[in-house]
Amino acid sequence: MPGLSQRGQQMPESPIRKLVPYAEAAKKKGVHVYHLNIGQPDIETPPVFFEAIAKANLKVVEYSHSAGLESFRQAVLDYYERKGIHGLGQQHIITTTGASEALRFAFMSCFDPGDEVIIPEPFYANYNGFALEAGVKVVPITTRIEENFDLPEIEEFQALITPRTRAILICNPSNPTGKLYDLDDLEKLRDVVKKHNLYLFADEVYREFAYDGRIHHSTLNLEGIEENVVVFDSISKRFSACGARVGSLISRNSKFISVAMKYAQARLSPPTLGQIGAEAMYKLPDSYYQIAINEYVSRRDCLFRALGEIPGVMVPHVSGAFYMVVRLPVDDADKFCQWMLESFSFEGGTCMMAPAAGFYATPGLGRDEVRIAYVLKESELEKAMKCLAAGLLAYPGTTVPELSGKKAN
Amino acid sequence: MPGLSQRGQQMPESPIRKLVPYAEAAKKKGVHVYHLNIGQPDIETPPVFFEAIAKANLKVVEYSHSAGLESFRQAVLDYYERKGIHGLGQQHIITTTGASEALRFAFMSCFDPGDEVIIPEPFYANYNGFALEAGVKVVPITTRIEENFDLPEIEEFQALITPRTRAILICNPSNPTGKLYDLDDLEKLRDVVKKHNLYLFADEVYREFAYDGRIHHSTLNLEGIEENVVVFDSISKRFSACGARVGSLISRNSKFISVAMKYAQARLSPPTLGQIGAEAMYKLPDSYYQIAINEYVSRRDCLFRALGEIPGVMVPHVSGAFYMVVRLPVDDADKFCQWMLESFSFEGGTCMMAPAAGFYATPGLGRDEVRIAYVLKESELEKAMKCLAAGLLAYPGTTVPELSGKKAN
Repeated sequence: MPGLSQRGQQMPESPIRKLVPYAEAAKKKGVHVYHLNIGQPDIETPPVFFEAIAKANLKVVEYSHSAGLESFRQAVLDYYERKGIHGLGQQHIITTTGASEALRFAFMSCFDPGDEVIIPEPFYANYNGFALEAGVKVVPITTRIEENFDLPEIEEFQALITPRTRAILICNPSNPTGKLYDLDDLEKLRDVVKKHNLYLFADEVYREFAYDGRIHHSTLNLEGIEENVVVFDSISKRFSACGARVGSLISRNSKFISVAMKYAQARLSPPTLGQIGAEAMYKLPDSYYQIAINEYVSRRDCLFRALGEIPGVMVPHVSGAFYMVVRLPVDDADKFCQWMLESFSFEGGTCMMAPAAGFYATPGLGRDEVRIAYVLKESELEKAMKCLAAGLLAYPGTTVPELSGKKAN
Repeated sequence: MPGLSQRGQQMPESPIRKLVPYAEAAKKKGVHVYHLNIGQPDIETPPVFFEAIAKANLKVVEYSHSAGLESFRQAVLDYYERKGIHGLGQQHIITTTGASEALRFAFMSCFDPGDEVIIPEPFYANYNGFALEAGVKVVPITTRIEENFDLPEIEEFQALITPRTRAILICNPSNPTGKLYDLDDLEKLRDVVKKHNLYLFADEVYREFAYDGRIHHSTLNLEGIEENVVVFDSISKRFSACGARVGSLISRNSKFISVAMKYAQARLSPPTLGQIGAEAMYKLPDSYYQIAINEYVSRRDCLFRALGEIPGVMVPHVSGAFYMVVRLPVDDADKFCQWMLESFSFEGGTCMMAPAAGFYATPGLGRDEVRIAYVLKESELEKAMKCLAAGLLAYPGTTVPELSGKKAN
């Protein structure tokens, strides 16, 4: 039997999905699983998505242009105009199969094997996979729950820059932390990027999900680094249409786009039906976004209240996206999350969360943290939090004396 | 401005799509372009595709399982059973975003940078792109139009094997040549693969399109190399649904599948709607395929007749798929194809073909050859062939004395 590649064997398993077999086993036992582990929103996909596909009345499901349907790209460009991101044209955008593919094209177009990319950790775990595919080294810069995952000082970035550093990659607002960067943060990054002639890669798929009256600032509006900025975007979360697999790669650097376009041609075309439906969704009025934002804010606040009542839990400030990384009073969140699925239930249910260690590149970090995605209705979230509280009381590896004491009684 | 990667700059432009700007210019001048350049069939996608999507009545377009919807995978497995490919289970299949993604997962899972893959040329040009992405060296083994693109002798393969050789990749029946390999060919490959412990990668997306009563033999049925065979499959051509972007990666080697699965997880999910529609198409009766096959055979025969009447054109035997590589009496097919679009029309139309040089890895080969895809109705093909004949008469670089003579008159 022929062997497998070194890089294939080094590919990490998804920290989000690796507990799936335990969840499936729990469900087979009749336990209800509250899925807080994955960014699959329960919000309905806008009906115009399905209506547009039906109305198109296609006879043949043809390839689209490798950069996407021209009318879809135009709808995305019009959306950017409305969002205050001006001056983009068809030469600045490639339609991709989700933001995942946009990331892959950018890694391949900008990096050679051995190059380095600096990423604030904890970060979206699949960045590791794309880096490994491209043979690129991820250099983490640690942000801390105690500091609400604030961006480190500029000097800390500069200390990590080597001759092989090619880019800084951020996710704003952040999956997994819910951190929304302010303009100062972005200008700090701009200065570093400009000084060292790096790319600034920005995953802005959660752009709309900025809370408490705060404003999302796009890297596409940073002056002086127009050629350095590459943005990854997607309809998945914006319109609750993850399975449509439609994203965008955007940059004002048309040389970059022309190289990325060759990767787009090699895979022929992004999904045609998803683009037709997405085009209609990009024409929705701003009120659509507000409804979704209100819903996520209510859910976040519900989690804040419930988690605040559990002794030993640390909850940072969260101002965007629909995730939070919280510290739990446990010895090992990997073990705890598995134990919750394998050995625990409360009123017929249990919680599935993503252990946070997989979101850090530095070994040992995040071992007592989990990522919680608030993609369930408030009533469900409340039940899930009761279940979590009960689980922490019952778990043998609880580290809070108060909880251990209760357990002993 | 930060630079671009070496590998990105080395990525070849698609030989199928690079003439697109000239075609667009021709259309703007009012010239009708007969598209013989791309494998985009005009045959209607079966209506059950659209019906199944409508019936599903989704509220949320969710991610599917990273390996695809279980029910879709089961429909594909049932199809293989009906095709005489037995013993496959859910552990042997991953649903992919077209066969393109299946190829990419396999290259990444089996090859490390510097590894080599032997491919009979001319071959589907995008294999080059996937190889470059993976840092893998393509070692071509030349097949010749004069020999109907027959597979070379086993000794020729063995002469190319080095310590870095990891696989042989075939496309059966072949894009671009229309060559269908017989069982002897496959057994020859089996012996090489077994002896040298290589993978046998087989692109079988045109499996049904075997003509003149000949039978397609799948590599999945080759005994003794069950762990070596990896197959790429797709609904794109089978059901004329290229834009759905649904393919499959299949292997009886479950260790390989488990590594490829990590790449599948990193990109989250293949398109959900396409899978729902494709599941219904995989349940179509065998009569569906026969209708498509009859249509393609008529078209092929129409091309044989028309091309046979043009002096200086060499047409090899073609027994599968819906492509043929033909030799034209021209100095340079790249120039000729561009000239046809830029400077020629006949009765208001012109032909767009794919210059074949881009399908060869050996420099200099295929310079007087083109790939013709017979994806148009017979009446259109006839008009296109008249146009080609007239173009060859008028083209300044025609190499047949007879044609040059006619032109001089």
